[in-house]
Amino acid sequence: MKAEIIAVGSELLTPDSSDTNSLYLTQKLNEAGCDVQLKTIVGDVREDIEEILRQALRRSDLILFSGGLGPTMDDLTRSAVAGALDRPLIKDPGLLEELRRKFASRGFIMSPNNERQAEVILGADILENRMGTAPGMWIEEKDRIVILLPGPPRELQSVFENHALPRILKKSGETRLETRSFFITGMTESELDAQLAPIYTAYPRVRTTILAGTRHISVRLYCWTQQGSGRRDLDELASRFQEKIGPAIFSTQDEPMEEVVGRMLRESRNTLAIAESCTAGMLGMHVTRVPGSSDYFMGGIECYSDAAKIDLCGVPPGLIRQHGAVSAQVAEALAAGVREKLRASIGLSITGIAGPGGGSPEKPVGLVYIGLADGSGTLNRHRIMPGDRESVRERSTYLALSWLRRFLMKNMG
Amino acid sequence: MKAEIIAVGSELLTPDSSDTNSLYLTQKLNEAGCDVQLKTIVGDVREDIEEILRQALRRSDLILFSGGLGPTMDDLTRSAVAGALDRPLIKDPGLLEELRRKFASRGFIMSPNNERQAEVILGADILENRMGTAPGMWIEEKDRIVILLPGPPRELQSVFENHALPRILKKSGETRLETRSFFITGMTESELDAQLAPIYTAYPRVRTTILAGTRHISVRLYCWTQQGSGRRDLDELASRFQEKIGPAIFSTQDEPMEEVVGRMLRESRNTLAIAESCTAGMLGMHVTRVPGSSDYFMGGIECYSDAAKIDLCGVPPGLIRQHGAVSAQVAEALAAGVREKLRASIGLSITGIAGPGGGSPEKPVGLVYIGLADGSGTLNRHRIMPGDRESVRERSTYLALSWLRRFLMKNMG
Repeated sequence: MKAEIIAVGSELLTPDSSDTNSLYLTQKLNEAGCDVQLKTIVGDVREDIEEILRQALRRSDLILFSGGLGPTMDDLTRSAVAGALDRPLIKDPGLLEELRRKFASRGFIMSPNNERQAEVILGADILENRMGTAPGMWIEEKDRIVILLPGPPRELQSVFENHALPRILKKSGETRLETRSFFITGMTESELDAQLAPIYTAYPRVRTTILAGTRHISVRLYCWTQQGSGRRDLDELASRFQEKIGPAIFSTQDEPMEEVVGRMLRESRNTLAIAESCTAGMLGMHVTRVPGSSDYFMGGIECYSDAAKIDLCGVPPGLIRQHGAVSAQVAEALAAGVREKLRASIGLSITGIAGPGGGSPEKPVGLVYIGLADGSGTLNRHRIMPGDRESVRERSTYLALSWLRRFLMKNMG
Repeated sequence: MKAEIIAVGSELLTPDSSDTNSLYLTQKLNEAGCDVQLKTIVGDVREDIEEILRQALRRSDLILFSGGLGPTMDDLTRSAVAGALDRPLIKDPGLLEELRRKFASRGFIMSPNNERQAEVILGADILENRMGTAPGMWIEEKDRIVILLPGPPRELQSVFENHALPRILKKSGETRLETRSFFITGMTESELDAQLAPIYTAYPRVRTTILAGTRHISVRLYCWTQQGSGRRDLDELASRFQEKIGPAIFSTQDEPMEEVVGRMLRESRNTLAIAESCTAGMLGMHVTRVPGSSDYFMGGIECYSDAAKIDLCGVPPGLIRQHGAVSAQVAEALAAGVREKLRASIGLSITGIAGPGGGSPEKPVGLVYIGLADGSGTLNRHRIMPGDRESVRERSTYLALSWLRRFLMKNMG
């Protein structure tokens, strides 16, 4: 079933609020086999709400409203939905009685505007709200279903889970959304798409999305299955991706790179020491984000100044004078030096020009060297990173982790 | 002007993603006097995108798209907008050339699918994207304006701020949303509200919001003004806040703490060296986020292991045995040690238990010591931080910076 979510409330259109109800609803709806294809956030404007519902009825099987069911003048969902469906609002005597009881039990007298909460769209089933005063509604209009839910998250979740979800499950049958995920490193988004598109276009039943971030590219596959059917396409496509770009995939479990690398270090009984110049702590922060990283992380040096490179990492001053602090030679010397100082089995270093200042025609902003040292020698790599200062630093951090992963893969066979 | 925002991308319709671009855009649009009345999130479905734009053109003056401008098959914004506006897409030779140059400068060869990023809707003005490859577009359709922005937040913000916002401001006339901002440290949210509420309730025309984050509390004042009217209330309220809680306010310019502290270090001609155990790089990363921080930051040591504390920071092994690595004594020894090693005027240290493991009844998870050393001696402070591992580390980082600020304030008179 194709679903869409409409959140009502001008307070959701300010710079500091976002609609979190829809995240909860999306998860529950996906699990129930419904595909959320649209979300709208609309203010307390009756014509806008009506128009959006009219559109939604044309394209979606299941339409969920959240919010706008309260007692105040700007709670317009009930009357706007009634308008779009061309049905009257009627006061429900049972609901009115119950509302009065709820107020009395809390020692309040019900004010007249609260009576609006007892208004029901003709033909709607009432969805009881045990957590608050505004009940939800379930309305069937030809082959479409419209569900009205209260806005406060606890009320919405209680009404949805107890009264809406069981009915949706009955309608959606056995259909479920299954997913597969791949985190990828070491390729650009377009290189990756060029390799994968010829494969995934042959599986039209599976939806493939490719999303590039600073840290990695994530590829996700989505497929609707019915009692397991459809899962074969998903598994087949996933294993063809594995064949094609296997080594570039670092996780199929949504694990961040630092976790994958941490597990490899532990399994291979290696220990790590780092020296970071331009990132000055970012790599260490990521490595130690993983609980238990003290098992393999010996420590690091934020060698931001030349003095720190020389005094703490043992880089010969002449090397910096001759090649510059951002160079292959200094990257390797930093890796070797910090490895020795902290008595680790592997030393990893980053030195680069994060910008905005400090670039030259020969060594532009974004130029970054990664150095690596183990017992048998030293290696280096370099790349020119795009973006601003923070983005150069992030990309450098992930390049270093990514390269360490490749190194460990080779050494672990 | 009535504005609406349309975010394109199926990845924004999963249970764990929300559209953060629209929060940024809403703030900027409000400041420019535009009222955001609708937001839509739509998947990579061409007909849906077209239909939503057709609706939007009926009700809104300004329509902003984010995302869907990349090189892959599922990047549909360009062609859907062209379809809804009934205009052709044409390949722009200048853009194509520029794209080739961008790829070449990073040592990549452009794959054919990237050429789609050089396609322009007939009659659109190109909005340059310095942070990435997909440019934005500005299209006028009768009295409506349609703006296409790239999805990655840094690219969106750069294109919007440099090329779209100046043109919107020209169109939107004299109404502005004016704001004042205060970043506050060293108080809880409720302490702060207890002090400020008696003041701000006397200014009903100004909206006051208080938002507590891990890093600091931010207080914002908002007021709609027309040619300056209303600004007096805003200024009066702001100066009464200054009187009441002055020293707790570290910025009225939305500067992060590391920038404020950096300026104070530079002005007082101090230099800084740091030793971080549980944060292992996070403090250094923040300090060096500020361009030019090499003027005062000498470097740091991620002393995650005891060996690193002893060998690199010169902490006597007996001190760790006697008091534990998380103690006032070790915090002070770390600060003094790193100050000396890196020949800085101030040493700052963090040692604590970030969790989830490693706590004890005496020293629970969240216990953090900050050490500070200058030429005349050493000091320490401790606190028990709430929250998970990452949150303990962030709070510790900001406590260290915040305490350094207070120290510099005292010493600078």
